[in-house]
Amino acid sequence: MNRQIILANRPVGAVDSTTTTLVESPRPSCGPDQALIKVGMLSIDPTIRTWMNDAPGYLPPIGIGDVIRSSGAGVVVESNSSRYNPGDIVYGMTNWQEWVLADDQNKFTVLPQGMGLDLATVLNVLGVTGITAYFGLTDVGQFHEGDVVVVSGAAGATGSVVGQIAKARGARRVVGIAGGPEKCAEVVESYGFDDCLDYREPHLARRLHESCPEGIDVYFDNVGGEILDAALSNIAMRARVVLCGAISQYNEMKNARGVTNTSMLIMRRARMEGFIVLDYSSRFAEAQLELAGMVHAGSLVHREHLVTGLEHAPDALNLLFTGGNHGKTLVVVDEDVQLG
Amino acid sequence: MNRQIILANRPVGAVDSTTTTLVESPRPSCGPDQALIKVGMLSIDPTIRTWMNDAPGYLPPIGIGDVIRSSGAGVVVESNSSRYNPGDIVYGMTNWQEWVLADDQNKFTVLPQGMGLDLATVLNVLGVTGITAYFGLTDVGQFHEGDVVVVSGAAGATGSVVGQIAKARGARRVVGIAGGPEKCAEVVESYGFDDCLDYREPHLARRLHESCPEGIDVYFDNVGGEILDAALSNIAMRARVVLCGAISQYNEMKNARGVTNTSMLIMRRARMEGFIVLDYSSRFAEAQLELAGMVHAGSLVHREHLVTGLEHAPDALNLLFTGGNHGKTLVVVDEDVQLG
Repeated sequence: MNRQIILANRPVGAVDSTTTTLVESPRPSCGPDQALIKVGMLSIDPTIRTWMNDAPGYLPPIGIGDVIRSSGAGVVVESNSSRYNPGDIVYGMTNWQEWVLADDQNKFTVLPQGMGLDLATVLNVLGVTGITAYFGLTDVGQFHEGDVVVVSGAAGATGSVVGQIAKARGARRVVGIAGGPEKCAEVVESYGFDDCLDYREPHLARRLHESCPEGIDVYFDNVGGEILDAALSNIAMRARVVLCGAISQYNEMKNARGVTNTSMLIMRRARMEGFIVLDYSSRFAEAQLELAGMVHAGSLVHREHLVTGLEHAPDALNLLFTGGNHGKTLVVVDEDVQLG
Repeated sequence: MNRQIILANRPVGAVDSTTTTLVESPRPSCGPDQALIKVGMLSIDPTIRTWMNDAPGYLPPIGIGDVIRSSGAGVVVESNSSRYNPGDIVYGMTNWQEWVLADDQNKFTVLPQGMGLDLATVLNVLGVTGITAYFGLTDVGQFHEGDVVVVSGAAGATGSVVGQIAKARGARRVVGIAGGPEKCAEVVESYGFDDCLDYREPHLARRLHESCPEGIDVYFDNVGGEILDAALSNIAMRARVVLCGAISQYNEMKNARGVTNTSMLIMRRARMEGFIVLDYSSRFAEAQLELAGMVHAGSLVHREHLVTGLEHAPDALNLLFTGGNHGKTLVVVDEDVQLG
């Protein structure tokens, strides 16, 4: 059988027990030009929450009754396709289930083996999480040596990598924003940021000014809302504000808090720009090369938060919104699926 | 004597009788390397209102007791400078007064005579108003032939020029947003926009969708607030949102309404960018050449709203916020100052 988690009801606010249902379907059979994949690990990303809304997005909403859309990795157990061989470890849209078919409509990338990387590391820093950090900072953010960089969600999977790339490339100062003293300490001590501000404390805009008195050249935003507003009030001339995500808003689309400091974009001749990492798919190798180099050199600190059991995927998703995760959140569906 | 309007109190909301005071000072005398200018006409721009606030801006706030900062034009009546000759009609920061000195700190541009242009036209379309429209659309907005362009403040001095340049350069569709049926009719009938939506009517976002079903490629924003939000909800992929001004917000800095649709910048991989026309000063001639060509060809419709008397400058400024003006608002200080 194939255990699957489907969308039962569109959530209002956080995902709860009524949002999804665990169902059992027959294991799919491997037709011509297809490969059958046993899913090993799921990448739990904030964007999954946006796909649950019936709202315009960069992909269509997940339909009621459909398996929850998700990237992940698995092992090829049977193949009628020249693209895949049994035993290949592959990365792609596995969705929240135990078995998935690769075909022309749903292509997977074969991951390189024998490089001494474990699957969780690959799904984190060499997957879309790290690649998002790379292109958001360098391409959308037009980072230059000497820039002052501020990153929200700094203890998170993407944010922690943004700050480390910026430091490695010669940022003048890298400041994180995170939730709570423990995460702030981790951002400075583990990820090497120069400073980290706790957004749960009052007067964030003023503290940003104190930490970056000359203003922010690149602000990498993962959260939106009030924190984005506080950063906007501190941008430097010709600043680039990179909109990567708005996790503070995803659970409250109806009551999204407005950003009031857009006029700072005029005063500072600054730019705010959004992006979706999928648009960079033809350039993924460029990011992966630099990130793999940093991993091999031991200069990229990364942390994965593993949750075991397909049935816990909805709880794992909620961790992203409560701040209960530390590092990249992954769900282990089958612990035997590993890179060699 | 030199009649001057000075800032007496910082306004909260609209400028009123307590904001400014008319004072009389001695007429300045023309020192070495200076020229004495008799002011003929003032350019009344929304940005003047922002300078009255004690808030960070692209120029320092006007000090209490200082003459209100403003651009304008005048005639040189006496000159100890090789840059200016008596009789020259000059353009620069005249401020709200009858007499001003040109010197190294306050330089003026000598306007060309004998071209058959009147001073009001020059202050409107060949001055910062028209130049703002030009660079906002072409440079910040990266306008390309075939784009769908939406302009707020479309009946205003800048907005009306934005739409006409876009049409002249091959926009697929140009839609204005303006206040009230009379202005909307003017935008379509006089300025040649394809459509104009009245923001005072409900459901602006839905009406924008109906008027631009394929989405907005360039949104030129003069107003900010709710109208900016409605436009953001209708941007096309890779859209450029040009922040030129936020006139709906200038009178209510404390209660500025937040923009809630910033996540559309992510979904649509779009950019929102602010600019200040002064940054383009080295390229003004490029804009003036194209705009002068359109004026001479009779293909640029423009309208000036003249208010006579220096003492009425504060009322003229308020017209911009009440929508009581039609076209570029200018204050005639001395009607004898004219281009030959």
